Amino acid sequence: MKKDQSRPEILELREFHTDSNGIFFKIKKFLFSGKTPFQKIEIFENENFGRVLFLDGLVQTTEKDEFFYHEMLVHPALLSHPEPKKILIIGGGDGGALKEVLRYPVDEVWLVEIDAQVIEASKEFFPWLGSALQDKRAKLVIGDGNDFIRETGEKFDVILIDSSDPVGPATVLHQKSFYESIKKSLKPKGVVAAQAGPLLYHLEQHRAKYSFLKQLFRISRFYAGPVPTYPGGTWCYVFLSDEIDPLADIKKNPPSGLKHYNLEIHRAAFALPNFLKEQLS
Amino acid sequence: MKKDQSRPEILELREFHTDSNGIFFKIKKFLFSGKTPFQKIEIFENENFGRVLFLDGLVQTTEKDEFFYHEMLVHPALLSHPEPKKILIIGGGDGGALKEVLRYPVDEVWLVEIDAQVIEASKEFFPWLGSALQDKRAKLVIGDGNDFIRETGEKFDVILIDSSDPVGPATVLHQKSFYESIKKSLKPKGVVAAQAGPLLYHLEQHRAKYSFLKQLFRISRFYAGPVPTYPGGTWCYVFLSDEIDPLADIKKNPPSGLKHYNLEIHRAAFALPNFLKEQLS
Repeated sequence: MKKDQSRPEILELREFHTDSNGIFFKIKKFLFSGKTPFQKIEIFENENFGRVLFLDGLVQTTEKDEFFYHEMLVHPALLSHPEPKKILIIGGGDGGALKEVLRYPVDEVWLVEIDAQVIEASKEFFPWLGSALQDKRAKLVIGDGNDFIRETGEKFDVILIDSSDPVGPATVLHQKSFYESIKKSLKPKGVVAAQAGPLLYHLEQHRAKYSFLKQLFRISRFYAGPVPTYPGGTWCYVFLSDEIDPLADIKKNPPSGLKHYNLEIHRAAFALPNFLKEQLS
Repeated sequence: MKKDQSRPEILELREFHTDSNGIFFKIKKFLFSGKTPFQKIEIFENENFGRVLFLDGLVQTTEKDEFFYHEMLVHPALLSHPEPKKILIIGGGDGGALKEVLRYPVDEVWLVEIDAQVIEASKEFFPWLGSALQDKRAKLVIGDGNDFIRETGEKFDVILIDSSDPVGPATVLHQKSFYESIKKSLKPKGVVAAQAGPLLYHLEQHRAKYSFLKQLFRISRFYAGPVPTYPGGTWCYVFLSDEIDPLADIKKNPPSGLKHYNLEIHRAAFALPNFLKEQLS
């Protein structure tokens, strides 16, 4: 990886949400910049959001608001499943989703990340997430999530798809054939949760994705929650299962220490705005 | 008002959410800039959000996403009240909240806006909102909302506080004495809904406000919903009443044509994240 840790000339970074709008962060201290075979990694310190990770110019994680995303990706699935023991995370090299999963009495968590440098960067610059990667229940696989899921003989109680957006290395993780392989790797009562993009943008992608997901899984529900630094500030996820309905009564209590998620938030997240319901119907 | 309609040199406008982060809009066409006795008004066209209104450098309304805010300010109160006939809006000179109120069979809607130029600008540049201001059920009062509510003998079924933030002309609209006067102007079964600031920022303001609101009203509930162009992308509101609980069963159906609000969204909006519940308790 080509490193360039100084870059004193950069005073701010922006993410363009469309060609004509987006967000900006003033840079207090530039911590890291490098180009891997897969993407460009940039890490800096911002006065308000703390440490910020950009991948290919898009906000991936910030110290201040990562909990919104990681809690909402992980807990609806882990609470809905009666006894989640063996978990797979596709992507998620920053360790944030893994950290949330490890709050449960799970036996093993496989994490398949295509870019080893994201894992290394997280261990170094986001140790409060990256330390989860060193837990003895975590099995790290450096490789392509789509190849892994097509070739593995392992089966899981819960599969979490913590991919980046459907551009760049993660494109294939948003396609039907990938979800067909995911379905084959689920144990009975298996549950999938996947990040599904912004509420405000790319509605046609939600529609296209949902049209094949509802054919593949008996229960297929979009849900949403805030992520302040993601485009539009509200992020969508999809919950998939043939047996488990996330809106059925949940008998368990969430783990302690969560900043956002609780059982009221769980139920509320599945209430969708009219415009999204129309798009998905 | 000092007008300066050209400004070809301005290519984008930003709103700083803190000193170190915020959002930016490229300007397709600058439509209007003027300074009133109360604030600076800027209106421009953005490729993605359409027409955008800035007041004192803060996004007030955009063509694309205003419905999130206006629907969530208005409909929880109007649906919860059994028969809302006489409504007061404090602020809201753009006409967006008024437009939502006029979807109901109300008799009269008083709108008290301190800045006549906001009303004029909305009529000219946001006619799909501003046209509501010409409805014969609308009674426009140009004046200070705090003075109005202290002096009026009128009483209302629903009072909506569509103020700007607690800086500048709207500071007093976030204080206890203002809400004491609001309470005195409610009819029996009266309901108040007020914008209450961002979910992510100014948590100490939420706490301070809630501590006096829950003393004043028997039922006092924060709720939240997305507003992509407001700081953090999720906005808070507060529902206040001595008699009406917004979480009781709602017997009415929402008006047709809403883009965001429905009865599931209504109930969901009152589910609060752990960090906010802790702050308010």
